[in-house]
Amino acid sequence: MVKEVSVSTSKQVHFVNITDEVKKVVKESGVKEGHCHVYVPHTTAGVTINEGADPHVVSDIIMVMNRTVPFVDNDYLHREGNSAAHIKASLMGSSASVFVQDGKLLLGTWQAIFFCEFDGPRSRRLLVQVS
Amino acid sequence: MVKEVSVSTSKQVHFVNITDEVKKVVKESGVKEGHCHVYVPHTTAGVTINEGADPHVVSDIIMVMNRTVPFVDNDYLHREGNSAAHIKASLMGSSASVFVQDGKLLLGTWQAIFFCEFDGPRSRRLLVQVS
Amino acid sequence: MVKEVSVSTSKQVHFVNITDEVKKVVKESGVKEGHCHVYVPHTTAGVTINEGADPHVVSDIIMVMNRTVPFVDNDYLHREGNSAAHIKASLMGSSASVFVQDGKLLLGTWQAIFFCEFDGPRSRRLLVQVS
Repeated sequence: MVKEVSVSTSKQVHFVNITDEVKKVVKESGVKEGHCHVYVPHTTAGVTINEGADPHVVSDIIMVMNRTVPFVDNDYLHREGNSAAHIKASLMGSSASVFVQDGKLLLGTWQAIFFCEFDGPRSRRLLVQVS
Repeated sequence: MVKEVSVSTSKQVHFVNITDEVKKVVKESGVKEGHCHVYVPHTTAGVTINEGADPHVVSDIIMVMNRTVPFVDNDYLHREGNSAAHIKASLMGSSASVFVQDGKLLLGTWQAIFFCEFDGPRSRRLLVQVS
Repeated sequence: MVKEVSVSTSKQVHFVNITDEVKKVVKESGVKEGHCHVYVPHTTAGVTINEGADPHVVSDIIMVMNRTVPFVDNDYLHREGNSAAHIKASLMGSSASVFVQDGKLLLGTWQAIFFCEFDGPRSRRLLVQVS
């Protein structure tokens, strides 16, 4: 069963820690041993797993991505003005997969799951399947 | 069961929309609820999910990748001359996973699956498993 | 069942070919048809699939990553001094998935699986599940 989670982003580029929401879906699924798959059904957002303790870690990721993939570039051909967001989405990827053991997400000590908004702020959807 | 799909690329760097081919494998599998895994068994090609409506989206992704990872660089040590293709393959990744619901790929409205050729043109293989 | 594999890295940035270790887990699992999922439970390391024959391929990947994501940057806000490692970890990703057929990993001819250390040298863990 695919469960849908709503994510609200408040900045143009915004990594939202969705670990608690994903943990809740795992718990409700009743699955004890398996996989949790997280999927972003958007083309200007992605998902990544990284440190959740210090918020500067994701702000540093965003800083380097913004520098490597400029928001404005005379060579962009896509007319909607959000080419940077599409490029960053492909660099982060649209899905993440974490093991489930004893009914819990098997994340490393410092790991958190982040919804990566690259063209916000917006209301977004996240799909989660535990199997 | 792993199904093999042939992909023909016609440029050195070429993102080929393979959504229809993957949908066909899902339909033939008979699986109603589950996952569709797409795997690229090459080291100079990858796979990504992004917008399929405007072809300029993928050409902008390619433009920024070509700028960040130059085709020719005096510091490359790999002698075959295709280091850029290997680097880009790792940045995009070798697999993608999409949920299957009601026998259909659960892609977002604007999402399409792209085979990412970085060292073409060539005849390539794509592996797809629905479970 | 999730199997843990130890990985020892000997350089600050070090791609360790872990294909043989993963193959061993696949063999011991007894699974004949399915998937092998590899997961890195760290936030300054990742995993990628690329060419294993010529070690210059991964050294070229590392060279371009080091250039794009500098080790030292006045704009980094994370105080531990390893922002570059976190950024590279997200670019490579924390998991990889390969099909299993006839009890064997279905890797392409030139493909190998690499543990990507970005903040070493260290003792690391790798989680592998075959299903």
